[in-house]
Amino acid sequence: MFQINQLGTPKIASPLQLSTVKGDNIFNFIKDEDKLIYDLSLENYQQCIADGIAPVWLEKAGPRQFLHFDPKQTKAAIVTCGGLCPGLNNVIRGIVMALHYFYDIKDILGIRYGYEGLNPEAGHEFLKLTPDVVKDIHHHGGTILGSSRGGQSVSTMVDTLVANNINILFTIGGDGTLKGANAIGEEVAKRGANISVVGIPKTIDNDIDIIDKSFGFETSFDIASPIIRDAHNEAAGALNGIAIIKVMGRDSGFIAASATLAMPEVNYVLVPEMDFNLYGETGFLELLKKRLLDKKHAVIVVAEGAGQHLIQKAAEVKDASGNIQHEDIGVFLKDKIKAYFADSLPVTIKYIDPSYIVRSAPANSSDSIFCSSLAYQAVHGAMAGKTQFVVGKVNNKFVYLPIAAVTTKRKKIDLESEFWFAVLQSTGQPFSF
Amino acid sequence: MFQINQLGTPKIASPLQLSTVKGDNIFNFIKDEDKLIYDLSLENYQQCIADGIAPVWLEKAGPRQFLHFDPKQTKAAIVTCGGLCPGLNNVIRGIVMALHYFYDIKDILGIRYGYEGLNPEAGHEFLKLTPDVVKDIHHHGGTILGSSRGGQSVSTMVDTLVANNINILFTIGGDGTLKGANAIGEEVAKRGANISVVGIPKTIDNDIDIIDKSFGFETSFDIASPIIRDAHNEAAGALNGIAIIKVMGRDSGFIAASATLAMPEVNYVLVPEMDFNLYGETGFLELLKKRLLDKKHAVIVVAEGAGQHLIQKAAEVKDASGNIQHEDIGVFLKDKIKAYFADSLPVTIKYIDPSYIVRSAPANSSDSIFCSSLAYQAVHGAMAGKTQFVVGKVNNKFVYLPIAAVTTKRKKIDLESEFWFAVLQSTGQPFSF
Amino acid sequence: MFQINQLGTPKIASPLQLSTVKGDNIFNFIKDEDKLIYDLSLENYQQCIADGIAPVWLEKAGPRQFLHFDPKQTKAAIVTCGGLCPGLNNVIRGIVMALHYFYDIKDILGIRYGYEGLNPEAGHEFLKLTPDVVKDIHHHGGTILGSSRGGQSVSTMVDTLVANNINILFTIGGDGTLKGANAIGEEVAKRGANISVVGIPKTIDNDIDIIDKSFGFETSFDIASPIIRDAHNEAAGALNGIAIIKVMGRDSGFIAASATLAMPEVNYVLVPEMDFNLYGETGFLELLKKRLLDKKHAVIVVAEGAGQHLIQKAAEVKDASGNIQHEDIGVFLKDKIKAYFADSLPVTIKYIDPSYIVRSAPANSSDSIFCSSLAYQAVHGAMAGKTQFVVGKVNNKFVYLPIAAVTTKRKKIDLESEFWFAVLQSTGQPFSF
Amino acid sequence: MFQINQLGTPKIASPLQLSTVKGDNIFNFIKDEDKLIYDLSLENYQQCIADGIAPVWLEKAGPRQFLHFDPKQTKAAIVTCGGLCPGLNNVIRGIVMALHYFYDIKDILGIRYGYEGLNPEAGHEFLKLTPDVVKDIHHHGGTILGSSRGGQSVSTMVDTLVANNINILFTIGGDGTLKGANAIGEEVAKRGANISVVGIPKTIDNDIDIIDKSFGFETSFDIASPIIRDAHNEAAGALNGIAIIKVMGRDSGFIAASATLAMPEVNYVLVPEMDFNLYGETGFLELLKKRLLDKKHAVIVVAEGAGQHLIQKAAEVKDASGNIQHEDIGVFLKDKIKAYFADSLPVTIKYIDPSYIVRSAPANSSDSIFCSSLAYQAVHGAMAGKTQFVVGKVNNKFVYLPIAAVTTKRKKIDLESEFWFAVLQSTGQPFSF
Repeated sequence: MFQINQLGTPKIASPLQLSTVKGDNIFNFIKDEDKLIYDLSLENYQQCIADGIAPVWLEKAGPRQFLHFDPKQTKAAIVTCGGLCPGLNNVIRGIVMALHYFYDIKDILGIRYGYEGLNPEAGHEFLKLTPDVVKDIHHHGGTILGSSRGGQSVSTMVDTLVANNINILFTIGGDGTLKGANAIGEEVAKRGANISVVGIPKTIDNDIDIIDKSFGFETSFDIASPIIRDAHNEAAGALNGIAIIKVMGRDSGFIAASATLAMPEVNYVLVPEMDFNLYGETGFLELLKKRLLDKKHAVIVVAEGAGQHLIQKAAEVKDASGNIQHEDIGVFLKDKIKAYFADSLPVTIKYIDPSYIVRSAPANSSDSIFCSSLAYQAVHGAMAGKTQFVVGKVNNKFVYLPIAAVTTKRKKIDLESEFWFAVLQSTGQPFSF
Repeated sequence: MFQINQLGTPKIASPLQLSTVKGDNIFNFIKDEDKLIYDLSLENYQQCIADGIAPVWLEKAGPRQFLHFDPKQTKAAIVTCGGLCPGLNNVIRGIVMALHYFYDIKDILGIRYGYEGLNPEAGHEFLKLTPDVVKDIHHHGGTILGSSRGGQSVSTMVDTLVANNINILFTIGGDGTLKGANAIGEEVAKRGANISVVGIPKTIDNDIDIIDKSFGFETSFDIASPIIRDAHNEAAGALNGIAIIKVMGRDSGFIAASATLAMPEVNYVLVPEMDFNLYGETGFLELLKKRLLDKKHAVIVVAEGAGQHLIQKAAEVKDASGNIQHEDIGVFLKDKIKAYFADSLPVTIKYIDPSYIVRSAPANSSDSIFCSSLAYQAVHGAMAGKTQFVVGKVNNKFVYLPIAAVTTKRKKIDLESEFWFAVLQSTGQPFSF
Repeated sequence: MFQINQLGTPKIASPLQLSTVKGDNIFNFIKDEDKLIYDLSLENYQQCIADGIAPVWLEKAGPRQFLHFDPKQTKAAIVTCGGLCPGLNNVIRGIVMALHYFYDIKDILGIRYGYEGLNPEAGHEFLKLTPDVVKDIHHHGGTILGSSRGGQSVSTMVDTLVANNINILFTIGGDGTLKGANAIGEEVAKRGANISVVGIPKTIDNDIDIIDKSFGFETSFDIASPIIRDAHNEAAGALNGIAIIKVMGRDSGFIAASATLAMPEVNYVLVPEMDFNLYGETGFLELLKKRLLDKKHAVIVVAEGAGQHLIQKAAEVKDASGNIQHEDIGVFLKDKIKAYFADSLPVTIKYIDPSYIVRSAPANSSDSIFCSSLAYQAVHGAMAGKTQFVVGKVNNKFVYLPIAAVTTKRKKIDLESEFWFAVLQSTGQPFSF
Repeated sequence: MFQINQLGTPKIASPLQLSTVKGDNIFNFIKDEDKLIYDLSLENYQQCIADGIAPVWLEKAGPRQFLHFDPKQTKAAIVTCGGLCPGLNNVIRGIVMALHYFYDIKDILGIRYGYEGLNPEAGHEFLKLTPDVVKDIHHHGGTILGSSRGGQSVSTMVDTLVANNINILFTIGGDGTLKGANAIGEEVAKRGANISVVGIPKTIDNDIDIIDKSFGFETSFDIASPIIRDAHNEAAGALNGIAIIKVMGRDSGFIAASATLAMPEVNYVLVPEMDFNLYGETGFLELLKKRLLDKKHAVIVVAEGAGQHLIQKAAEVKDASGNIQHEDIGVFLKDKIKAYFADSLPVTIKYIDPSYIVRSAPANSSDSIFCSSLAYQAVHGAMAGKTQFVVGKVNNKFVYLPIAAVTTKRKKIDLESEFWFAVLQSTGQPFSF
């Protein structure tokens, strides 16, 4: 079950003027017992009844009637970690606005350059965050706080939080960041400190488990789409033109697959979840050849983490010459295609890598909405004293989940899902090659 | 329950090379007994158990192992009705591609100018649809088939379908169109004709009941967002500048509310679902005055159907002079604001109506994905012989629903929902005024 | 001749580290005797020789080696007047950056809400402008200073300039604003005050005389273009669909004509410079009818100032009923078209007015470049003590012009020019109707 | 002087209903004696008078009253060569529309895949071009004709033109293409064939001599601008973050310089025209270091052809290991920066290469206008029997120029020009380092 950790018993009446009854056109406070079923299949429902067990449920997100933190004496901090992702500034803005206007909390600090900013040795000063500082930042990509990769000593970070009287730490980051946040939460608990640690999952790859999607993800393929559209122009503009577009996705191919569905000019999509052969009669290169002979051009989208099984084989060959390095799948593919057609077919290959262009863009309007909502929900949960939780959408509803529940494994494309089937339908590529 | 009508018993093996077992990385055919629970709340689950009844379920969309229609002898037609909506061409393209490539159906007709095209008297010729005709149309807004409003004789339309040996009719339209489609389905049933009638709900207002969202809706606020952003420049560019942006939404304010959430520069949003007063100490105009005195500018988003209660009052006043006409709420508001501040505060009001600009735009990438998927699912359902159904997403999953189930009433913003609460949080406006 | 007024004789060495010789890869100071011929035709050249007169020349813009104003003791102010125009913030930013970084002037004031801000009675405080205040403003449309229409007492404004020790006033505005600036310059001269008055012509209509184009103009049709593209979808989406797009252009039709050339889907463009008939066998409505019968749809772009001869006639008719009002040409056209086809042809008319959407947008990249350059040139000229001048581009070169030279009359489309011919070629409409 | 070659004496009356007198609001045919002065400086004018010589002039572009080619018997062909450039399809569309509608020429062929399509051995069939084929292509980047690099036998190409009765060949391409076109023209002349050869200069680098700008160039920095804007987010998002954006520009840095001016977030721009040192106290890396210490981030735009003097030195070092290759300046810079700061300052470098993304995009609205006009002017000149000419804008006016005049040398940024000075002013970088 997805039970959320809690600091003390909430006793302070919320300043929000909400309702507890239906029919008055005023939003109701959410109760901790408002729960949502995780698995929607009727089959699962019937199995639960047969087994006499309750179905797996999730805790509904939203403002609680009683708070743990007294707005008058609460100090919050926000940190952004890892690579850029569209929407970071929107989330920061949303948190600041919610703390300031909903809960009247005026003491909000921005931690500079990721977890590094919680290590005094790095020497980064905090940035004071007010509505005036953040009011326009949602129009810009990036993060006004700066970011960094990698962890810091959990103990040092908790020392900093305690020394600065910080009661709530909002961490915006991916898998590693969330694990770090959980570790901070555990250290806080060990020390008996009164600090809530909240995670807003940030992964442009959309690979956080359980949740429907992560913020910035929709923007990512929105930005990639016209690039793919125009890459098609590159392919079609040359005889046997081939455009290879590499998009982000180290372990999961959601961006590649979604961009492919959004821009049906794509003929082949390669993702980390799939195994595939380059060579042989049913291999990728023969597929590609048939298309070139027929249509004279091809568009290939490849996730950065795809085809590592091929590269590693290649690496082993190289091993002898003492030169192993993780290869770029895009460049690898380009080289292999070039070599394959060298004698048989004159091809022109254009390799395009828009990764930084995509991740540094401002959030589109759907993500803007999503980011504000995530920020508001994160603030509501934190004020109620919940800790070591993330906020996310599951089955299209906002829920709180224990951090640990979403960091056990990464979400991947289910190759038997209707989503992947739609992608294959769009490209026309076979289930396996 | 949401049981779908069915033409005969599907007996023809699907040409799709799908699986029936898990674990082989090949998508499985969907079975009619694959059902999804509608209400996710644990409370409802427990109530169902207590009552000993099954929860309300929905039928999962997807390709069936056995078809009703023999691909070799099947002829399909597509019609688009009502006002423009982003994504129409994407849906047309998706249907044609799915029929052609998945089911090898080559005989596909485009009906011109809505249901009018099924009335021979209108004299519109059918448009032959092939992959070559539709391959680039998703880059353009509008509909290549043309559209029209209003109905035609159901009997005449069925005559046309029968006379032209059409087996599947895909109707893309809103409430009225879907009711028409259902009526066609009933007439078909009465005649014992072998024709499946499918609806793909099209409503830029997002006001079709039960389903999560309709295609084109996300694009609508994506297009409206920069317009609102820049309207804020108009407001802030003048002393006591007020920008009023009217967006579509006759009965439901989803576009207005979503655009507001997406662009937090908005200070007030007015939707058809809410009652509000213009005058009085807690009325809208006093609220506006306070803001102008404080901030010197204001941005107002109003749905076209908002404030009809006020206009009707105004109309009654006019009634005496024999001049009743449905007034434009945007113009009405502009006039009332101007009059209210005439003596007290010099204001500059800019009124912006981007309705046609929004609805004629091409689909954004999220809608592009959504439209392809809707089209594919519609084709799968039709080939299995299902009829009088719509395809949609509920709880983030694709399902089939009886047309009648979604046309009983229009979907409206629940003023007690977390969505509306988020909107109010973003604007800072009170629950009522 | 276009001789610029001058405050005193420049004696202070410029802090800019420029050159006076060619070949050292360092830009040379511009000398006042660097002049450019206005009329490029060989015919004019030969005529000048025959007449023994010098050709009309323009003064080259650029940094001078000697300045009139001592950077250490100079205070500058910026004011934006009239309606919004893309690029206002870019010009403000450019002026501030140039004053601060090139000439080390730190005392820069922003005048709020147009000339009103120079009238103490209006009670607007100055805004202190620094690089930090302006560094991001070019990403946003509008003007951070606010604007207003209409004039103020010249005497009062000069009083304010003198009282606040302002030495340079940068005015950004259209015809009226520039005339006001010139009047301020004259009053300054009368008083013997040491104040330079500079104009940066701002007219989205592109109707300032002599200069090639005004800033914001390219952005205006860049923003209008996709709106026209999608209006074409509206037109083609209905049987005999007609889209009317009204764009700005009170006296000159440059936006309408340029947007038409940029988006060749336009079938008819109507501008203030042309006379045309609605009725009769060769009138506009018959032309339109022929197209509808042939192509089933039409796209019309109309400048706001077009067809006033028709409206005035209409107004005279109305006069009897005591109801004269300046009518909107777009609405007027819509009504006339509707009436004309009422009995003969069922038409669907969509009227679109994107004026505010266009003018409040941020500058596109060409205008961004243009605005920075205009700002830099304005600052160079002012520092040299030039006054009552505007900066602009003529024959693709930056020049200084006396304000009076460009405010004598408005620039209009020459109906015999190659530009207008290109427009007619694009639409296929006849020279007259 | 820029005298254009001519096929025979034009004798056929133009079908265009134009005028020969002023004042009738109908465009006048252009006469061959309508000439424009090239050098606008008053200094040059006075020198010409002193020397008693005529100034250098250019021939005005436009429709002639008498044609060489009889529309009824004329066949035209269009070929696109070299790399993609925004606007190719617009030019193709404009030529087809002008031939078809202005001159009633119905026989228009598209040559596939560049000059290769004129070599029968390549086996590419011609594409028949009609208004229907080209009407929507301006919305898409790329070229519907396909392109290729490299030349073909001039003799073979002329054989093909003659064998297919082609009278006018429109060549759209860069330096090499134009030289090829000129060679075709010379071979045609040698054979006494009746074929006009026209060039529309296509160079995204804007490096064709004499002309103001080439089509697609404005779009190039329009597309690059938001990428640079967001690259700034990448730089600012990390401690000592450095973003390097490489743009096209093999011999000339116009795209780099213009994009820099358009997006003043750029701190350093490096172009092929400038010499610069990486090392030493006044070298680039020390400049960069000072900025990082001060501002914590930097944005660098580099043209692909910049810094070749540095790379060649590096290459010589590599020579020993037998591994010389032309290095990518972006990667080279990245490596050198990384190495330089390895021990002293932790930096994060993001390298972004949007070249293909830029060149495959559709034309923006300014380029759309420009492309139509170029196409129209090219058609007018060809119909009058002019040959071996290009059409371009000089001093903001359309002119015809001999191909040979613009292919003698490439246009480069004049480091002493006001343009480059504006770029330096925008970045704040010194004249040399």
